[in-house]
Amino acid sequence: MQTKHRIGVFGPGICPPDTYELAREVGFLLGREGAIVVCGGLGGVMEAAARGAREAGGLTLGILPGASASEANAYIDIPVVTGMGNARNVINVLTSQAVIAIAGSFGTLSEIALALKCAVPVIGLRTWNVADGGGEALPIRLAADAQEAVREALRAARSVGGKDYA
Amino acid sequence: MQTKHRIGVFGPGICPPDTYELAREVGFLLGREGAIVVCGGLGGVMEAAARGAREAGGLTLGILPGASASEANAYIDIPVVTGMGNARNVINVLTSQAVIAIAGSFGTLSEIALALKCAVPVIGLRTWNVADGGGEALPIRLAADAQEAVREALRAARSVGGKDYA
Amino acid sequence: MQTKHRIGVFGPGICPPDTYELAREVGFLLGREGAIVVCGGLGGVMEAAARGAREAGGLTLGILPGASASEANAYIDIPVVTGMGNARNVINVLTSQAVIAIAGSFGTLSEIALALKCAVPVIGLRTWNVADGGGEALPIRLAADAQEAVREALRAARSVGGKDYA
Amino acid sequence: MQTKHRIGVFGPGICPPDTYELAREVGFLLGREGAIVVCGGLGGVMEAAARGAREAGGLTLGILPGASASEANAYIDIPVVTGMGNARNVINVLTSQAVIAIAGSFGTLSEIALALKCAVPVIGLRTWNVADGGGEALPIRLAADAQEAVREALRAARSVGGKDYA
Repeated sequence: MQTKHRIGVFGPGICPPDTYELAREVGFLLGREGAIVVCGGLGGVMEAAARGAREAGGLTLGILPGASASEANAYIDIPVVTGMGNARNVINVLTSQAVIAIAGSFGTLSEIALALKCAVPVIGLRTWNVADGGGEALPIRLAADAQEAVREALRAARSVGGKDYA
Repeated sequence: MQTKHRIGVFGPGICPPDTYELAREVGFLLGREGAIVVCGGLGGVMEAAARGAREAGGLTLGILPGASASEANAYIDIPVVTGMGNARNVINVLTSQAVIAIAGSFGTLSEIALALKCAVPVIGLRTWNVADGGGEALPIRLAADAQEAVREALRAARSVGGKDYA
Repeated sequence: MQTKHRIGVFGPGICPPDTYELAREVGFLLGREGAIVVCGGLGGVMEAAARGAREAGGLTLGILPGASASEANAYIDIPVVTGMGNARNVINVLTSQAVIAIAGSFGTLSEIALALKCAVPVIGLRTWNVADGGGEALPIRLAADAQEAVREALRAARSVGGKDYA
Repeated sequence: MQTKHRIGVFGPGICPPDTYELAREVGFLLGREGAIVVCGGLGGVMEAAARGAREAGGLTLGILPGASASEANAYIDIPVVTGMGNARNVINVLTSQAVIAIAGSFGTLSEIALALKCAVPVIGLRTWNVADGGGEALPIRLAADAQEAVREALRAARSVGGKDYA
């Protein structure tokens, strides 16, 4: 059975050291809780989250944009090779029961938007500040640190997960 | 030769009358200029833009999320049937030489983000107000009305178009 | 309204001169009948079919695997840029109301199989000879020449087209 | 590191009992060898292969066509939710280092063709008998039974796998 929760960790492929360490902590906490870390499989936040998860003994899934598994970072246990470029962002989102968006890039913003469109809960960590035309903020839960982000993501996944297996 | 410019018009599938009329005006102006209107093929802003373009004698392309051409609105000349759900947003963006984003929805936000990621110029009309973690606004050109949006989109497309055919 | 029929013409991206001329004739006949030629937008059979259609004054749609319109052949009026590699074969098939498969390549075989899977009628011209484990041939209509292929494809499209607009 | 081999097992979603048992044996042998079974995640051959792999303690990946993990069969450990319909067949193929095609359906034929197109080795078990226009058979290795199919697939994966990590 699909007993392990799948949590997406999305963020830029190039990032400064403090963002890298934040993503690594998020991955570590998810791995320690037995969740599968879903990410885009490349560098930066994606690598850091997978690295942290592996350090905690967790399982990591990297959904790659290119057509070869060789582009996966060194901490991906299972590369999913799509050959679909940015369209793989949709798969990242649909495969996750909840997502943690860390810091900002256009790709990350697209994943936040697609998650909201697909009703996948989004937890934000130092990420985009988005408001619609009327100034309303996006329905993202903002977390103060890695621990809160992981706790909120797992809580959201548990309720979504319930629907998965109903 | 690909002599006609392809301009994406993206916005929500359900919208109030004033937004509908704004999108219709955008479509009309694009059609009158001989541009192909690229859209998601469904209702709301997508229908209004295609309707306006047809009223001006223009050509309309609807890139559909579902697996049947029958979901296209009545003003689509050429339905492209993807069967790929929201992943078709990527095709919308890549097929356009410039995009006009009208009003707001999560799908529209994903298209803005994907366009920026893919370096396709984005013109905003009453759309998302997005800032990154540091409060920097997105590199979207905001237009005051349909005329300015179309003028800016065609200007951007002409420079991109040059690269297309180089 | 979607009054023009959309006929896919699929075949290898590199082909000998006699195959090229056959595909060009198919494109010419389709263009003369007012059909839109849908193809993969690249060389070989795809180029020949688009070239023939243009010579007859028809409209050509090229659904490209890469992320740039610049890879389209010189006879594509409307490039659809997918960035999805071979996954665009599915879009080729779903967008067509009937397909003509010319000669053979693995990509063409995948398009024949996907068309049959999606219940899109397939007309074969000097193409794959496929049998299932029990020796049953595939439900492809084999045409003797370009004229028969085009006649059969348009007949099939008219009946499918009826469903499109019901 | 990606130390486990990923072997695709493809076949129809509905199949007779003897085909089901054959696929289950293939899955069992793959699971016993420590390979990850990659499949389309639905019923028939896909379910049987995943079931066999689980019975041997192996890991199973189901790449789903729909937009919900709930459509996965009961033996899928990690559902990958694509929402892309048949376009997910391309992901099945690219994610696998070698594929075993069992019995026949149009979807399976498309996966065989896509695998050959993408240079992923294909082992056939009671599957399509395909010849090109000149009567040449497809470059598929035909196996006599589950044991031979698994042995050949793992041998092929080891050589491909070498490239993965080079």
